[in-house]
Amino acid sequence: MFQSFAATGAPEQGPPRLAELRKALLRMGLTGFWIPRADAHQGEYVAARDARLEWLSGFSGSAGFCIVLPHVAGVFIDGRYRVQVKAQVADVFTPVPWPEVKPGEWLREQMPDGGVVGYDPWLHTRDELDKVIKLLEESGITLRAVANPVNALWNDQPLPPKGQVIVHPTAVAGESAPAKRKRMADVLRAAGQKAVVLTLPDSLCWLLNIRGADVPKNPVVLAFAVLHDSGLLDLVIDPDKLDPIVQAHLGADVRLAKPENFGAVLDGLAGPVRVDRGSAPIWVSDRLDAAGIAVSWGEDPCILPKARKNAAEIEGMRQAHLRDGAAMVEFLAWLEAAAHNGLTEIGVASALEGFRRAGNTLHDISFDTICGAGPNGAIMHYRVTDGTNRPWHPGELMVVDSGGQYLDGTTDITRTVVNGMPTEEQQACFTRVLQGMIAISRVRWPKGLAGRDLDGLARFNLWLAGQDYDHGTGHGVGAFLSVHEGPQRISRISEVVLEPGMVLSNEPGYYREGAFGIRIENLIVVQEAISLPGGDARAMLTFETLTWVPIERRLILQERLSPDERDWINSYHAEVRKKIAPRVSAAAQNWLAKATEPLGGGRILS
Amino acid sequence: MFQSFAATGAPEQGPPRLAELRKALLRMGLTGFWIPRADAHQGEYVAARDARLEWLSGFSGSAGFCIVLPHVAGVFIDGRYRVQVKAQVADVFTPVPWPEVKPGEWLREQMPDGGVVGYDPWLHTRDELDKVIKLLEESGITLRAVANPVNALWNDQPLPPKGQVIVHPTAVAGESAPAKRKRMADVLRAAGQKAVVLTLPDSLCWLLNIRGADVPKNPVVLAFAVLHDSGLLDLVIDPDKLDPIVQAHLGADVRLAKPENFGAVLDGLAGPVRVDRGSAPIWVSDRLDAAGIAVSWGEDPCILPKARKNAAEIEGMRQAHLRDGAAMVEFLAWLEAAAHNGLTEIGVASALEGFRRAGNTLHDISFDTICGAGPNGAIMHYRVTDGTNRPWHPGELMVVDSGGQYLDGTTDITRTVVNGMPTEEQQACFTRVLQGMIAISRVRWPKGLAGRDLDGLARFNLWLAGQDYDHGTGHGVGAFLSVHEGPQRISRISEVVLEPGMVLSNEPGYYREGAFGIRIENLIVVQEAISLPGGDARAMLTFETLTWVPIERRLILQERLSPDERDWINSYHAEVRKKIAPRVSAAAQNWLAKATEPLGGGRILS
Repeated sequence: MFQSFAATGAPEQGPPRLAELRKALLRMGLTGFWIPRADAHQGEYVAARDARLEWLSGFSGSAGFCIVLPHVAGVFIDGRYRVQVKAQVADVFTPVPWPEVKPGEWLREQMPDGGVVGYDPWLHTRDELDKVIKLLEESGITLRAVANPVNALWNDQPLPPKGQVIVHPTAVAGESAPAKRKRMADVLRAAGQKAVVLTLPDSLCWLLNIRGADVPKNPVVLAFAVLHDSGLLDLVIDPDKLDPIVQAHLGADVRLAKPENFGAVLDGLAGPVRVDRGSAPIWVSDRLDAAGIAVSWGEDPCILPKARKNAAEIEGMRQAHLRDGAAMVEFLAWLEAAAHNGLTEIGVASALEGFRRAGNTLHDISFDTICGAGPNGAIMHYRVTDGTNRPWHPGELMVVDSGGQYLDGTTDITRTVVNGMPTEEQQACFTRVLQGMIAISRVRWPKGLAGRDLDGLARFNLWLAGQDYDHGTGHGVGAFLSVHEGPQRISRISEVVLEPGMVLSNEPGYYREGAFGIRIENLIVVQEAISLPGGDARAMLTFETLTWVPIERRLILQERLSPDERDWINSYHAEVRKKIAPRVSAAAQNWLAKATEPLGGGRILS
Repeated sequence: MFQSFAATGAPEQGPPRLAELRKALLRMGLTGFWIPRADAHQGEYVAARDARLEWLSGFSGSAGFCIVLPHVAGVFIDGRYRVQVKAQVADVFTPVPWPEVKPGEWLREQMPDGGVVGYDPWLHTRDELDKVIKLLEESGITLRAVANPVNALWNDQPLPPKGQVIVHPTAVAGESAPAKRKRMADVLRAAGQKAVVLTLPDSLCWLLNIRGADVPKNPVVLAFAVLHDSGLLDLVIDPDKLDPIVQAHLGADVRLAKPENFGAVLDGLAGPVRVDRGSAPIWVSDRLDAAGIAVSWGEDPCILPKARKNAAEIEGMRQAHLRDGAAMVEFLAWLEAAAHNGLTEIGVASALEGFRRAGNTLHDISFDTICGAGPNGAIMHYRVTDGTNRPWHPGELMVVDSGGQYLDGTTDITRTVVNGMPTEEQQACFTRVLQGMIAISRVRWPKGLAGRDLDGLARFNLWLAGQDYDHGTGHGVGAFLSVHEGPQRISRISEVVLEPGMVLSNEPGYYREGAFGIRIENLIVVQEAISLPGGDARAMLTFETLTWVPIERRLILQERLSPDERDWINSYHAEVRKKIAPRVSAAAQNWLAKATEPLGGGRILS
């Protein structure tokens, strides 16, 4: 199994570790210390060695940080983790709602007499720090870069991972690594920059057409690089990760350096050197400053090209989705047959992983399956553990949000199913969520708009009923890379213009606390729209759907759908049947035929 | 008649005036000069004296500017005026598409050897100038504030207007002028500012509860003011505009100064003084700088409070709309009866003004009626003149966009009507526009969103057909003030959060060049939404509709509407009948009864 259901976090270890850390801070002459969840690569998943926040506090969420002061230790967590944090940390830690409370404001309040707060310069970005420093003006509080005291206290801290690097074939990547380096070098020369420091693992994997195994679920390599305006690249990596095949793939224009020589690589550069203030560790720009090398702030140049998938990457995503769709259909057919047998969330998530593994093409799951029955479905980022595992009772909805990493693509799909017959209220809410999901699936729009401009279309029917959901409608997705990939999103906070080739999720939801949750999610990719008769002479974009899995017909109030919405569902289901039936077992084909029957009208009773 | 149909602009005067201006620039040691449409108050309408751009070039649009250089005179106009400018200016002027071409870029291109471009510091804002200056870095081109040479050349330049000021009663304003001054003074003290310079006429009218007659269509007073953090106000105004009643209303806390003493008023201030870099003439901040008084940039503090209408203002708007709705219904009843009689656009616009005047409560029209038959309807800001006047042929659509200024409110309404029977294509486009207009009318949304977040809802059905419109969905509207009022808008460029009391237009459209235009417009006001059964515990907002006039049923393809959309139309029409029937003639009542019949289904054939 890729997924583990063990409860994580060890609240009872928190108090003694916190006490040890406070003693260390006294010795270091610090008032406090800042422990982020992030590693030096600012990813969503971190290696075991970098789980310092969990080691100290017990909190295992994917975002947050702790600031330890002599009298208080604040654990800053966002809306997703307000409930989870209470179960995971001992009461010597104080949960702080973030970003509502900004760390700078909190420090001013907690340190009226000023003081010195330490931070590890490998684990914070310039942007992050500057926001805090701005709020600390004239407070008597200063920040100081120090060697991380957690590393010293953590006796059995794991070593850095040595996951083996693999080649991502050019045929799948759609562009050779040298061609990509040349394109990025052109960008640097046009900007008058001699080099760029790359610290984001997925940028590096995209640029070099490699994949890795250093963190769970994301096939990335933890490494750093410097790309020169000549196209030469210095790759700072543990050489144990590279076998001869990969070394040959990298070629002579990729020079290897060991991690301990990263500083020396930077010291040898001529400026100006581009550094991303939103993602590079402060350590990088501090080192360049110290060596007298001019830093030129600018975004990692790989981010947008990586987001705009090329034809080969899109075709790979399509193929991965057909395989994943077949596994999902086998799973849903099994689930319907087994629903009355007292299934639990863990049983369901385990079975699903089994169906995904069955085809022997699954590289990993793309995240821990979220499988929430009844009220657990209302917890947006629920991760079932042996402690929370819950049977799926008749009449209950279940949200199943899962995905796979395949060598040619990454999937992410949510379906909401029902054990037996739903209530009309459950159907009404599901239908509104579905209408939003259909609106995003169908929309065309004039070029130049951002995800923000489309987000409301997914919410309109919920809003009319006084309902909404507290997450974005869609996130970017990588091609056999991170399942959460920037910069594009469908969200009221995203002003990144949508461009052809960008892959996104389309996942509106609805959550009624203590009762049920609903989410429906397909992946979609931005494409040029064909012109229509009677249409304007203006360039428009649209979404192609990548995910082909039936949507639960018993949860749809058909009479609430417009004719166009009904047509969309029927043509989607016809396409699912056509694409997936040839790939599944006879039993699943029978289930699929029924699950994709056209909607007629009225309430579906069986 | 408030509206004139005379063709404006005098292209034949352009060449000699341009030649005279170029001679004057030589004498002044300038390479060029910048002539904006704006006056010192940056309003949409300007007094005759300030129509310098039209005097010089012939161009009469509501936005744009001319930059005169020795070899070229560029007239910068936005998308609305690309056609109009060609008819209005002689070919010694070169139309320049703006904002696609930025003035700074154009200057660099046209003046490769550098030079000095003059500007009148009364007619430009700091923001406007800074944008240009930034683009001129290292170009050898500098800008210089000078006395306006157009004033010297324009022999018969009208004098500044002396429109009589009237009192806007507290009962209609909903808050006394002293109370408003106290609120704004509190804002200044909280910001640590000693005073604010007010240069926007509608801010001043709102703050002092006065209205004026200095520019056409907008009941504003051209004046300046300084509000002190004590609540005292220096009003810089031509005393001829103030009769004893108004002087008594203003009271002792409003001190009067003549326009020629504005500088002396500023010189006497203690800093910091708030100045709005987006609306105040550069002259203001230059004068404060010269006197050594600290300028603190900040938005005019009246803008947001003015935009959030109070209960009395909203009630006034409702009442004005009932009167205006009755006039519109009389008009539409007449129009249907007279349609086959060879009506022209001017005939229609004149009749409409007559119906509005009939009630004896019309203060002015709120803008020149846009009345475009057939292909003229596709010109978004069409203003009919004797030269363009066109008969309304059978089978043609006509867009009628008009409004009134009443003592208790401002209206702005567009209806699209048809002479005889429309084509199915016209109906299909109209229905899509209507669906967008209904979506905005019905929407509820969680607090905190801006117009940008709603704009797409109005366009969704057009987008699906490959269509769109090149204007915002809605603009803010004043309460017996400017019909275009900021800062809120429903537009992809508006990030101003919508707040209760803000009045907006809801006016999606569709324009097929050379064929027809469609626009449907109601005014709406933001209100707190009541909570719904089954709804979330989250604060939501919604729009209350202010406009009550039938929407042409013959243009609706009923089968394209969802049940909810059909219900909206039917309940809107029922409400129109209930509110307006008691206010109109028997003939109009008959027409109204038919025009508001419920939609059943299928195509309406009569």
